[in-house]
Amino acid sequence: KFGLAEREDQVGVVTGLAWTSVGGDLLSIEALRLPGKGRMKTTGKLGDVMKESIDAAASYVRSIAPRIGVKPPRLDSWDIHVHVPEGATPKDGPSAGIAMVTSIVSVLTQIPVRKDIAMTGEVTLRGNVLPIGGLKEKLLAALRGGITTVMIPEDNAKDLPEIPDNVKEGLTIIPVSHVTEVLQRALTRQPEAVDWDEEAEAAAAAAKAAERGSEGAAIAH
Amino acid sequence: KFGLAEREDQVGVVTGLAWTSVGGDLLSIEALRLPGKGRMKTTGKLGDVMKESIDAAASYVRSIAPRIGVKPPRLDSWDIHVHVPEGATPKDGPSAGIAMVTSIVSVLTQIPVRKDIAMTGEVTLRGNVLPIGGLKEKLLAALRGGITTVMIPEDNAKDLPEIPDNVKEGLTIIPVSHVTEVLQRALTRQPEAVDWDEEAEAAAAAAKAAERGSEGAAIAH
Amino acid sequence: KFGLAEREDQVGVVTGLAWTSVGGDLLSIEALRLPGKGRMKTTGKLGDVMKESIDAAASYVRSIAPRIGVKPPRLDSWDIHVHVPEGATPKDGPSAGIAMVTSIVSVLTQIPVRKDIAMTGEVTLRGNVLPIGGLKEKLLAALRGGITTVMIPEDNAKDLPEIPDNVKEGLTIIPVSHVTEVLQRALTRQPEAVDWDEEAEAAAAAAKAAERGSEGAAIAH
Amino acid sequence: KFGLAEREDQVGVVTGLAWTSVGGDLLSIEALRLPGKGRMKTTGKLGDVMKESIDAAASYVRSIAPRIGVKPPRLDSWDIHVHVPEGATPKDGPSAGIAMVTSIVSVLTQIPVRKDIAMTGEVTLRGNVLPIGGLKEKLLAALRGGITTVMIPEDNAKDLPEIPDNVKEGLTIIPVSHVTEVLQRALTRQPEAVDWDEEAEAAAAAAKAAERGSEGAAIAH
Amino acid sequence: KFGLAEREDQVGVVTGLAWTSVGGDLLSIEALRLPGKGRMKTTGKLGDVMKESIDAAASYVRSIAPRIGVKPPRLDSWDIHVHVPEGATPKDGPSAGIAMVTSIVSVLTQIPVRKDIAMTGEVTLRGNVLPIGGLKEKLLAALRGGITTVMIPEDNAKDLPEIPDNVKEGLTIIPVSHVTEVLQRALTRQPEAVDWDEEAEAAAAAAKAAERGSEGAAIAH
Amino acid sequence: KFGLAEREDQVGVVTGLAWTSVGGDLLSIEALRLPGKGRMKTTGKLGDVMKESIDAAASYVRSIAPRIGVKPPRLDSWDIHVHVPEGATPKDGPSAGIAMVTSIVSVLTQIPVRKDIAMTGEVTLRGNVLPIGGLKEKLLAALRGGITTVMIPEDNAKDLPEIPDNVKEGLTIIPVSHVTEVLQRALTRQPEAVDWDEEAEAAAAAAKAAERGSEGAAIAH
Ligand SMILES: [Ca+2]
Ligand SMILES: [Ca+2]
Ligand SMILES: [Ca+2]
Ligand SMILES: [Ca+2]
Ligand SMILES: [Ca+2]
Ligand SMILES: [Ca+2]
Ligand SMILES: [Ca+2]
Ligand SMILES: [Ca+2]
Ligand SMILES: [Ca+2]
Ligand SMILES: [Ca+2]
Ligand SMILES: [Ca+2]
Ligand SMILES: [Ca+2]
Repeated sequence: KFGLAEREDQVGVVTGLAWTSVGGDLLSIEALRLPGKGRMKTTGKLGDVMKESIDAAASYVRSIAPRIGVKPPRLDSWDIHVHVPEGATPKDGPSAGIAMVTSIVSVLTQIPVRKDIAMTGEVTLRGNVLPIGGLKEKLLAALRGGITTVMIPEDNAKDLPEIPDNVKEGLTIIPVSHVTEVLQRALTRQPEAVDWDEEAEAAAAAAKAAERGSEGAAIAH
Repeated sequence: KFGLAEREDQVGVVTGLAWTSVGGDLLSIEALRLPGKGRMKTTGKLGDVMKESIDAAASYVRSIAPRIGVKPPRLDSWDIHVHVPEGATPKDGPSAGIAMVTSIVSVLTQIPVRKDIAMTGEVTLRGNVLPIGGLKEKLLAALRGGITTVMIPEDNAKDLPEIPDNVKEGLTIIPVSHVTEVLQRALTRQPEAVDWDEEAEAAAAAAKAAERGSEGAAIAH
Repeated sequence: KFGLAEREDQVGVVTGLAWTSVGGDLLSIEALRLPGKGRMKTTGKLGDVMKESIDAAASYVRSIAPRIGVKPPRLDSWDIHVHVPEGATPKDGPSAGIAMVTSIVSVLTQIPVRKDIAMTGEVTLRGNVLPIGGLKEKLLAALRGGITTVMIPEDNAKDLPEIPDNVKEGLTIIPVSHVTEVLQRALTRQPEAVDWDEEAEAAAAAAKAAERGSEGAAIAH
Repeated sequence: KFGLAEREDQVGVVTGLAWTSVGGDLLSIEALRLPGKGRMKTTGKLGDVMKESIDAAASYVRSIAPRIGVKPPRLDSWDIHVHVPEGATPKDGPSAGIAMVTSIVSVLTQIPVRKDIAMTGEVTLRGNVLPIGGLKEKLLAALRGGITTVMIPEDNAKDLPEIPDNVKEGLTIIPVSHVTEVLQRALTRQPEAVDWDEEAEAAAAAAKAAERGSEGAAIAH
Repeated sequence: KFGLAEREDQVGVVTGLAWTSVGGDLLSIEALRLPGKGRMKTTGKLGDVMKESIDAAASYVRSIAPRIGVKPPRLDSWDIHVHVPEGATPKDGPSAGIAMVTSIVSVLTQIPVRKDIAMTGEVTLRGNVLPIGGLKEKLLAALRGGITTVMIPEDNAKDLPEIPDNVKEGLTIIPVSHVTEVLQRALTRQPEAVDWDEEAEAAAAAAKAAERGSEGAAIAH
Repeated sequence: KFGLAEREDQVGVVTGLAWTSVGGDLLSIEALRLPGKGRMKTTGKLGDVMKESIDAAASYVRSIAPRIGVKPPRLDSWDIHVHVPEGATPKDGPSAGIAMVTSIVSVLTQIPVRKDIAMTGEVTLRGNVLPIGGLKEKLLAALRGGITTVMIPEDNAKDLPEIPDNVKEGLTIIPVSHVTEVLQRALTRQPEAVDWDEEAEAAAAAAKAAERGSEGAAIAH
């Protein structure tokens, strides 16, 4: 099953693309949302750069939580576990960044990810998509694995002329410059935003605390 | 006693299969559930990959807690200790994943594990079973150790033609693709699910807190 | 005094047996119970495997706490410090496991350990005793050190024919398969069990909390 | 897009200048302010010296919080994540210090940073700007990347005679000795200070606590 | 001043004896008791074995706290810092154990240590004194440094015949087998014990809590 | 500006003296006091020995807090950050100890440090000043950097005959044996002590708690 596209749309399961000394490969990324305290766990023999890319992805997602329908305090009631299977194979590099964002958004919103899409691209804290290496090998692996659509960084579009024609004919290749474009295509439906005004929430919480204080004073009379 | 099947069905004791440079071996895995705070301890000279496979197994089990009859908050009142005896022998690799899941589910539910079954297979966060190496050596060790039934990853079924006939005749070999199939066969009885609706529970807790708040206000009159 | 049996029965002091490149030696193990928070401290230049054997011993003891007269919540009000003197000498290996269990049970129950007994054997999370290496050298060291009784793993009984007759005549050698047999012989008296039903305790605590809640409500009328 | 100036003024995004064995480069630094507990996270394969320069920048900013309109207790309700993209490229050294200060002040005040300015300079705990290496290479990279204004340490002004004329003509080069000069030029508007007297705040908090205490006593009559 | 006896009796300052490749030396050990939370800090380029000897010393002292006039809960309101000056010189080994005990007891009781006494000896968790190496070199350093009395492990008394006569004539050498003998001689006065019965204290605390509970219930009437 | 004396007296900024393979240098040390929880942060590529010297300095200062006008509980409401600029240059050794004490006392009391004074000397937990190396190189650097007064350890006074006459004529060299002498000269004014009796404070706190308890009981009538 590995090296092949998933069989159905699932929550938290995203297909990334890896590039190793022996060629490209599909990289299955899976996240779980668990009752918890806002902690992030990562497993799968991940190198430091990949772990940092998960940190960056997680911070980006926290920063847009209201836009995906999640009020920020809710994030402190869950843990997220991101695992990259085939636990004996070392994995590293920042190029799974946009897949990590997609996986985390999917588990937070419980919206499934389209199974026939793969993606590659580093992500910044603001969701911008940075170029990656090994485009040809990654696209070949996607084609071989039954993927129909691949999202790549817009800054890698300049490398497309070097990609064999049969690969470009077998795949829908979509250059993206921001991870919102990724989420629009990869999630099976779009999350609805919730209202959240940090300053207003802080003020409301302070007011409620003050009111409770005066009630407390009232007890004394 | 080591290298031989357990003498009785026990809670938390599962027989895995190891593959080393000197051949296959039975791997006794034991878990304990202790009063605690939701922590996981692992011992037995385990390498990082095996420790991560325990992390993945534990997250999978947390994610299905209601299905095995455990309300998630209950998990925070126990610690789990997973130990792999023969503490001087280094152990590593992800292939004990399904055995780890079985062991953890057994201690959480206090349902014993069948002593005549061994198992091998990496597990993902969603409970899928991934292929392993050293199938022949592991099956030989199982036969030698008095095991009658072995569960292997479905993706390793393709390796069965290379296994000697006497091994295949001496063992019931069951390919599995998901760890639920493992639990159905390895536990001496099936756990009953409990109702648990995270959103509803969160709402109920909020309502109860609000009610307590209005009672508090009532004191002031 | 080192390399010789203790001069009197003491709480928390147990004689183990070490096996090094230069032969066998008595290994004095001492534990202290201190007011604390359920933490375990280990010192004495212990290797990772010996530290893990103390972890396993401690979890086993926690799992049988009511059977040795200790209600589990009481464990959170003590720290335990296990020290293996001659702090400059590195020590490692799992074979002091049953001695660690005995030392911890002794400090928790405050029952002394018989000074003329030595012991060797790895322990599992369920208290089973696994075989060890260097039996001959260890028995020689026991004899030389004035020990009269040595407990060894039952799985090492097969090695007894190779032990010199004078050693076997000078020592009472007792093969054991479970650490309860060790405790029965090594402690100067047996601890009394206390009733403890985890589920019942949890239910009682919940009931008490609910009652307190209704009292709280009563204040409002 | 990398190696080029940002396309619009953004909150928390600052252009630094790196000097490596292969020449100078623009260094995009981005910070995010997230709901949290006053923690700092850093990612981007940063060396220890660069991480310490972020620590120093953060402490300097905390020390001037009221001057940029932030009451100190507010800092404990946010986490800050500083990321330096191109996560696979190692980065180190203290010379991004003033850029780190600018980035952190920008996210705390939510005031954007001018996109056409780059900067280089170590910062001390009191905001003084210390000299850096590789001035020529860094200025060349700035010019190449479409930057119009570069702030450099005043102590590097002595190196300007060695800079090619075309570079000095293409860039406005501003020597600075304190980071306040950097903030005045790099932020698109200046933050307004808030009143904050630590001693007075501590006294007020103590008084309020005492008052609450006497109310509590009043209940008893 | 280093390598010489202290000029006056001080609280927390103890003279140990070091043995290095270039001979013996006086080792000044100083402890401070600070308002805190029961933490131990150690500095002075100490090796792991010396740090563990401080851990063992601290646990021994905690275990005898009532005997030196300190009620155990009081220990949680202080931190202790043990420093061994000449911070650039690496120090290691367990032989300063009894000096560490003396230093910690001195700061806890605020009783000064006699300045003309030096001491060497490993300490166990029960206060027993174990033999050390380099006796001759250490005694020579003591004599040279103006020390008049040296406490050594009883098990090192067998090495005294090899010590030059002028050293034995210049020093009062006192073999000790337990650290209580050390405290009796090294402290300028003896601490008074306080009553402390752990079980009784726990019961009293529980009773007080129960009483408070019934008062709480009374409010409802 | 580096290698030169500060231009004005500042709070928390102290000039130390470094000795490296390429000669002596001025070492600017800066501390900040921030709202916090009693934590200490250190940056500037400091080696372990220098970090430990900061630990020792901090403990000494905590132990004399009332004498410099700071009630001990106040220390838990601040963090202190000690930074040694030129963050890319490794620094180590214990000889900045008295400068660290001066810097920490200055930020705690908010009393500036005289800009024309430099200092070198290891400090013990009791504030004693221990000798250092590289006296000649350090004094040369001080002279070169515009320093007028240098405090050195009294135990280094024996090295003064080897110092060139022009250096001794250009500098006021003050041997010190205790850090209180350093503070008297380096601070621009002397802090006033506050009354603080630890035992009395503990008793008062206990009494207040008891009183609150009896008030609580009164509610029930
Ligand atoms: Ca693969
Ligand atoms: Ca685009
Ligand atoms: Ca085996
Ligand atoms: Ca199947
Ligand atoms: Ca020995
Ligand atoms: Ca038996
Ligand atoms: Ca670049
Ligand atoms: Ca200027
Ligand atoms: Ca010395
Ligand atoms: Ca004696
Ligand atoms: Ca310099
Ligand atoms: Ca003096």
